[in-house]
Amino acid sequence: MEKETGRVEAFSDGVFAIVITILVLEIKVPKDEGSHLWHGLAEQWPHYAAYVVSFLVIGVMWVNHHTIFGHLKRVNRTLLFLNLVVLMVVSVIPWTTAVLADHLRDPGSAKVAAILYSSLTVVYAVAFLGFWWYITHVGHLFHDHVDRDGARATRLRFGLGCIAYPCTLALAFFSAPLTLAAHGLIALYYAANQIPIPLVNDGPSGDGDDDGTEEEAEGHVTAVP
Amino acid sequence: MEKETGRVEAFSDGVFAIVITILVLEIKVPKDEGSHLWHGLAEQWPHYAAYVVSFLVIGVMWVNHHTIFGHLKRVNRTLLFLNLVVLMVVSVIPWTTAVLADHLRDPGSAKVAAILYSSLTVVYAVAFLGFWWYITHVGHLFHDHVDRDGARATRLRFGLGCIAYPCTLALAFFSAPLTLAAHGLIALYYAANQIPIPLVNDGPSGDGDDDGTEEEAEGHVTAVP
Amino acid sequence: MEKETGRVEAFSDGVFAIVITILVLEIKVPKDEGSHLWHGLAEQWPHYAAYVVSFLVIGVMWVNHHTIFGHLKRVNRTLLFLNLVVLMVVSVIPWTTAVLADHLRDPGSAKVAAILYSSLTVVYAVAFLGFWWYITHVGHLFHDHVDRDGARATRLRFGLGCIAYPCTLALAFFSAPLTLAAHGLIALYYAANQIPIPLVNDGPSGDGDDDGTEEEAEGHVTAVP
Amino acid sequence: MEKETGRVEAFSDGVFAIVITILVLEIKVPKDEGSHLWHGLAEQWPHYAAYVVSFLVIGVMWVNHHTIFGHLKRVNRTLLFLNLVVLMVVSVIPWTTAVLADHLRDPGSAKVAAILYSSLTVVYAVAFLGFWWYITHVGHLFHDHVDRDGARATRLRFGLGCIAYPCTLALAFFSAPLTLAAHGLIALYYAANQIPIPLVNDGPSGDGDDDGTEEEAEGHVTAVP
Repeated sequence: MEKETGRVEAFSDGVFAIVITILVLEIKVPKDEGSHLWHGLAEQWPHYAAYVVSFLVIGVMWVNHHTIFGHLKRVNRTLLFLNLVVLMVVSVIPWTTAVLADHLRDPGSAKVAAILYSSLTVVYAVAFLGFWWYITHVGHLFHDHVDRDGARATRLRFGLGCIAYPCTLALAFFSAPLTLAAHGLIALYYAANQIPIPLVNDGPSGDGDDDGTEEEAEGHVTAVP
Repeated sequence: MEKETGRVEAFSDGVFAIVITILVLEIKVPKDEGSHLWHGLAEQWPHYAAYVVSFLVIGVMWVNHHTIFGHLKRVNRTLLFLNLVVLMVVSVIPWTTAVLADHLRDPGSAKVAAILYSSLTVVYAVAFLGFWWYITHVGHLFHDHVDRDGARATRLRFGLGCIAYPCTLALAFFSAPLTLAAHGLIALYYAANQIPIPLVNDGPSGDGDDDGTEEEAEGHVTAVP
Repeated sequence: MEKETGRVEAFSDGVFAIVITILVLEIKVPKDEGSHLWHGLAEQWPHYAAYVVSFLVIGVMWVNHHTIFGHLKRVNRTLLFLNLVVLMVVSVIPWTTAVLADHLRDPGSAKVAAILYSSLTVVYAVAFLGFWWYITHVGHLFHDHVDRDGARATRLRFGLGCIAYPCTLALAFFSAPLTLAAHGLIALYYAANQIPIPLVNDGPSGDGDDDGTEEEAEGHVTAVP
Repeated sequence: MEKETGRVEAFSDGVFAIVITILVLEIKVPKDEGSHLWHGLAEQWPHYAAYVVSFLVIGVMWVNHHTIFGHLKRVNRTLLFLNLVVLMVVSVIPWTTAVLADHLRDPGSAKVAAILYSSLTVVYAVAFLGFWWYITHVGHLFHDHVDRDGARATRLRFGLGCIAYPCTLALAFFSAPLTLAAHGLIALYYAANQIPIPLVNDGPSGDGDDDGTEEEAEGHVTAVP
């Protein structure tokens, strides 16, 4: 059973690793000759910005996926399927990134592309919340050290955390570059902050320590969307 | 020997993860400017539909591959070769997906593309049945907890399960979009239903419980094509 | 130290899995409309043939790499470097495959492409022999169950096995399709036949049983180029 | 906790394996017919040279990443983030490689491309030093056998080792081919030479044995940028 978890993690890690790496395939080689190449390289700044932001976004998604699986003891068929749906959404990011980068300098189409980019992150948030909701709902897939009632209670906070994504969707109607920047900031924020998954030996510290960022928490770990 | 199984699984997982992820590389970035980009994005619906269906199809193939290997204790050279043939067929799916998506809106060529897509799944079914037939035939590659005679008896049911693929091939002569939808429905059906691999401690429940979908079956696991 | 071996294997498996999977990216989607798509698909036969052959070739290379690492207990910096050189050569195969497939129907350039394809396999054979020569030379990287003197004695036989590759190079001057077919046959031959790596408990069977193909050999395993 | 380290390694290995393998996707298939294909193949020498050099460069980066993780017992959120930054820089190498290879024969733009290529390695050195600085700073992530004070003392030497990259940047203003050659030589040098990470049982040999290249060092292992 342990082994099953291992192989799902290996498969998911593979998908995340490939998705994050093929982002670079969307950056083209400028054809400009001579010192005009500087100009050609500079013209591509939307691709560099989109690369960095999407790399961070996918990286944070991987860290959270990784954290949740660290608390699971086994998987069942439903979880395999929900995991597949999460991976299906994540795998689309290189495409929405390319659409946004290609259109970022044309104000009209940039708005459309930014709406597309943000919409996909909203779909991701829904898929991820469904994944987490199911795990906390059935409960028995967790390792014994996880406080199942406490884990269930994190759902609301998870949902609130996800509200950032619809906000970027609203922002997309105003400015595509700001939308991209917002996604980068959200990723940086979630890289540093954590919603704890309570453990059974989580004592009194579980009450007042909601978003502590201590780095070696023995008692609670992170899983933010 | 255990280790051998581990590395074959790791290699196969890698191939499945890459195949499922490069599907997205076939979706192009529309060049339409301004709000016409909405139109350009909408025009590409065949690519989105084909992406979702093929992602599910490959995902279910991975789940079944993963389930079977969970019951193997070791591999031999013949199995490595049969596994390679299965992976060779799976790796072609991104191409048949691209052919179908590119041609889905031209009725004439869509039929050809749908026949190609369905034919590959038939070839996959044959390769997978050969793989499973060999494992149940030699028997000694299984873990000790597997009921080898019972496993052998599942072959017919496996074969019947595969009949869905030739049916989609017949359907391809009538409608390419329906063929794609049928593949999606088959994948969803197989994601939820299971043919059990009987275990030696499988007691009386092994008789009447053919397609039970209980999620934590201690006594039998899934492997449908 | 065990762990080191594990991570080198994981990295190498990843490279092999990616190389074997990106072969399909070289097969293009024909643009023919209506039933002409049949013609367009048929025209691409060199790509299908090259795909199947190269998939088998890389698959056999992976099996041998996998077999050798199954007998190693640890790695050192030199071995990491030699392994990297082997992977560097293997990673070029998708490109030589694409060159051969693109030119197979033009007799003049097909010859050039076939020479290129075969030359790379010769380079691979040299890299792989260097890798194996080093392992048998230092000896102490093997697991204790390996008969080090016996392993050293396999070098000549390995070298003879590699002679098939220069032969395909000679054949390339006459016929590119035959060269491709020859590579397919060599891969099938090596998939079925084995040069044993002698083990210390290899008793009397080690003498007369040179190319036995029994599938569950407890006493000796395979490593052919 | 061990498991966490395992999954970060698996993810990182996946990224390194993909980055090193997609290098080959940048080498194009020449369209020349007949024996002119020889000419077309020869014309592409900058791509072959860039492929070999970047493969070695990424390979050495992987070996060092692998060595450092072999000395870690656990990871925390900051390290996951710093690791992500290192991977983000490494993943750009296929693009800088393609830019350099495409422009290597045009003296004007080749200079620009070489500056770009070398600049990325400088960024990598900064990211990698930050990664190593953090690990030695917090200390508690190391396995118990690592001499933490000694590890901290290696920082200066690491930094000096990285000075090679700014030197290639200076060289890029003079000659792009020489810059590429310099990167290849640096990779070969680092493949053979090591800065030891001192272990607690490292006895007297830890003092005078700065750059020993013995291959099976029980007492100290390598981690050069």
